[in-house]
Amino acid sequence: MKSFTIAQINTILQGELVGSTSETITGPEELQKAKTGHITFIGSSKYVSRWKDSKASAAIVNANLEVEPGENRALIKVKNADLAMAKVLEAFEPESPVFDTDIHPTAVVHETAQIGEGCKIGANCYIGKDVVLGDGVVLYPNVTILDDTAIGKGSVIWSGTVIRERCEIGQGCIFHNNVSIGADGFGYRPSDDGRGLVKIPQIGTVIIGNDVEIGANSCVDRGKFSATIIGDNCKIDNQVQIAHNCIMGKSCIMAGHSGLAGSVTLGDGVIIGGSASIKDHTTLHSGVTVGAGSGVVGDVAAGKTVLGYPAQDSREMLKQWVMMRKLAKQ
Amino acid sequence: MKSFTIAQINTILQGELVGSTSETITGPEELQKAKTGHITFIGSSKYVSRWKDSKASAAIVNANLEVEPGENRALIKVKNADLAMAKVLEAFEPESPVFDTDIHPTAVVHETAQIGEGCKIGANCYIGKDVVLGDGVVLYPNVTILDDTAIGKGSVIWSGTVIRERCEIGQGCIFHNNVSIGADGFGYRPSDDGRGLVKIPQIGTVIIGNDVEIGANSCVDRGKFSATIIGDNCKIDNQVQIAHNCIMGKSCIMAGHSGLAGSVTLGDGVIIGGSASIKDHTTLHSGVTVGAGSGVVGDVAAGKTVLGYPAQDSREMLKQWVMMRKLAKQ
Amino acid sequence: MKSFTIAQINTILQGELVGSTSETITGPEELQKAKTGHITFIGSSKYVSRWKDSKASAAIVNANLEVEPGENRALIKVKNADLAMAKVLEAFEPESPVFDTDIHPTAVVHETAQIGEGCKIGANCYIGKDVVLGDGVVLYPNVTILDDTAIGKGSVIWSGTVIRERCEIGQGCIFHNNVSIGADGFGYRPSDDGRGLVKIPQIGTVIIGNDVEIGANSCVDRGKFSATIIGDNCKIDNQVQIAHNCIMGKSCIMAGHSGLAGSVTLGDGVIIGGSASIKDHTTLHSGVTVGAGSGVVGDVAAGKTVLGYPAQDSREMLKQWVMMRKLAKQ
Repeated sequence: MKSFTIAQINTILQGELVGSTSETITGPEELQKAKTGHITFIGSSKYVSRWKDSKASAAIVNANLEVEPGENRALIKVKNADLAMAKVLEAFEPESPVFDTDIHPTAVVHETAQIGEGCKIGANCYIGKDVVLGDGVVLYPNVTILDDTAIGKGSVIWSGTVIRERCEIGQGCIFHNNVSIGADGFGYRPSDDGRGLVKIPQIGTVIIGNDVEIGANSCVDRGKFSATIIGDNCKIDNQVQIAHNCIMGKSCIMAGHSGLAGSVTLGDGVIIGGSASIKDHTTLHSGVTVGAGSGVVGDVAAGKTVLGYPAQDSREMLKQWVMMRKLAKQ
Repeated sequence: MKSFTIAQINTILQGELVGSTSETITGPEELQKAKTGHITFIGSSKYVSRWKDSKASAAIVNANLEVEPGENRALIKVKNADLAMAKVLEAFEPESPVFDTDIHPTAVVHETAQIGEGCKIGANCYIGKDVVLGDGVVLYPNVTILDDTAIGKGSVIWSGTVIRERCEIGQGCIFHNNVSIGADGFGYRPSDDGRGLVKIPQIGTVIIGNDVEIGANSCVDRGKFSATIIGDNCKIDNQVQIAHNCIMGKSCIMAGHSGLAGSVTLGDGVIIGGSASIKDHTTLHSGVTVGAGSGVVGDVAAGKTVLGYPAQDSREMLKQWVMMRKLAKQ
Repeated sequence: MKSFTIAQINTILQGELVGSTSETITGPEELQKAKTGHITFIGSSKYVSRWKDSKASAAIVNANLEVEPGENRALIKVKNADLAMAKVLEAFEPESPVFDTDIHPTAVVHETAQIGEGCKIGANCYIGKDVVLGDGVVLYPNVTILDDTAIGKGSVIWSGTVIRERCEIGQGCIFHNNVSIGADGFGYRPSDDGRGLVKIPQIGTVIIGNDVEIGANSCVDRGKFSATIIGDNCKIDNQVQIAHNCIMGKSCIMAGHSGLAGSVTLGDGVIIGGSASIKDHTTLHSGVTVGAGSGVVGDVAAGKTVLGYPAQDSREMLKQWVMMRKLAKQ
């Protein structure tokens, strides 16, 4: 792990240094768990009293809080301790797993694939026919990229992830482990005798913008035709399901276990809480927030917050919950 | 991508061709997104008015709708535009990813495994001892099949999927990426001192019928003893969980994120909505429908539709939801 | 499969043998599905009447039940038929998939990795720089272990699982297929222009205790800093999501599709039902039980049972549900 002097850290944060410490700062830690050499952070007044008992050698503190550093301890006062902490994490970020060779000899790369400069391809990866990897793409071991898929420069794909044929992935994306991109959408028609189900071919694809992050074991299905589309800068947590022909705008957030059924449209900046589900063919306009665990069954107007199952305006839903509790006590 | 004349497409659909177009049809697309050369579909009267403004060169139209083709545009009138569209998708279905050799040299195939005629086994697959693959089985790269498992002819297994030992998979199945078949069921007993948990061996297996499709990142656990059974023609979406000793009849549908706890029994044709969960040891008889997001906690009689958490008759549940909204407004 | 005489089985169970059978016992099976040669179990009086019609050759029976063995059939009377059955399953447990060589030649093991005695590493595994595997660790084919991770002795990792860098896994753990350990936690800060999202580095790790079992396609994210921690003997089912910086005590149980949002703390012996979700930064103290499908939004005191969405004391929630049904019928 890396280490810094408190002065070096303040060079990064450009805050006001109060007190001083001779300890080398070895990493960030929470107030209560911190030991000598750790830097911690105090973002609100309720944590101020715990500083005295913390073993941390330094803290990042919101400028409006009153705290004394104490002996051989330093404070860095900043406008926004949360943002400053993110910068400290960047400073301490350890090295990524190594590649001894750029393209591991056990990786199978189809002779027609185009591999950009500085790409790294790990052991036992498979790169199919006519795949195009932009410069600096990193594939950790055991990644599978099937034919005609293109991945933009600087994207990082972690082990176990599979991207099927004809998908387009933007630049600067991060896909975590065991992600599935481009599997067939879920579509069937009744068989001619009305008793069975016949698969409807899913001939579309998946188009993912730039700077999209997709969490471990999440899925984005290919379109029935045309494409399932994820806009720039969307952030998708683990075990999220995005069905065929969904269209997501920019900078949407979907938390763990949430899901979009088929042909859902999200505007920009939509936030979907954990384990929430959205009914097929609905539209959630820009700026909508869906509470965790909700089930959305209809369109939602821009900027609204909905909650519950079936989801409603969050204030209405909270009223219903309060009312139920009261009635049950009568 | 493939292309067709409008006459060729009508040869497939056997509908009534109205108007004509000289454009080559290059693919299907939705009314509003379609461009010149696309064929679209109009399945209900509410979309008729949008035809005029669509750039599509052709449309498949339900016979009962009144639409004029317009200049250099063609309509194909059919009984059921949805079914016809499925056939058009079949016609346009692109080639699957290629295998340059039937069995890739990096695939590890145990010497005792029996590989049928015309099988394709991708790079870095593993095929264990005494595995039997029927004719024409396709394994995309990075698939793992463990000892003594049998897969019926024509089944297709996509990358990242793992099928553990002693499972029986039928013919014509499709398993998407990162599926897990045959992992241990979830069973423990209290330790002798009552403070810990001791694993109960899960010595059973998984038996999957013919024409079963299983979505990306879904799981079917092996039985505690005997088998977890999935009937012919069941269709299972992404991230579905099927626990040990469940028994599913024929042609059941489970949508994304839904789950069966242990020893659930489904009749034939049961439909389970997205994110719905079924309690262990319950039976859902043939023809039951479970609404999305529901939590079913008891047996459900044949043909019933249940909804909500805890799930009840769907009309009762809808009444409760209406009632709650009214009361909260008082 | 293995087989035993009824006397051999009673040597294992140390029960009271009543009646006798000359049949070789070939495996355990449920009362109604059992055939000649099977041993079944009768744990409660409601199953006694079915024994006469069962084809099983033997049964394990709770000592307090009145049952007659019948001709060429044997009963083993024990204190607790469930526990005895678990021991019978252990006796019948079949062989695990074979490894023809301890370390398969296609496995890629970094030269700096330390591999304990008796480890087995399957085809196409990847073991990164400075990884440490304790004695007897088993990795089935297509497992990926990234740099600096340590796995304790006797742990078994099934195919498709990925453990990222710098994680610490205890002894005797079992991770099923396609598990993801150590993917980045889900954390962003607003970009400087307030319109986008910037990734907060997740520089922490994952620490997992001894005898922890993690189900197929489940995820445990690495900490934002310090570690996500799972205590000894925790049992986690399939498709469970554990977010960054969660801390789980000992012997907790999480059923399928359940999830912990970031920085959740669980005491010891907490039981979380299927598809239940726990809000970030909450604490569930030792002995808490969360009903299936619940959404917990606040701290829960030791030993309490909560239920529903939002979760409340289970008795209160049941009252509300009864009340709703009554009101809707008025």
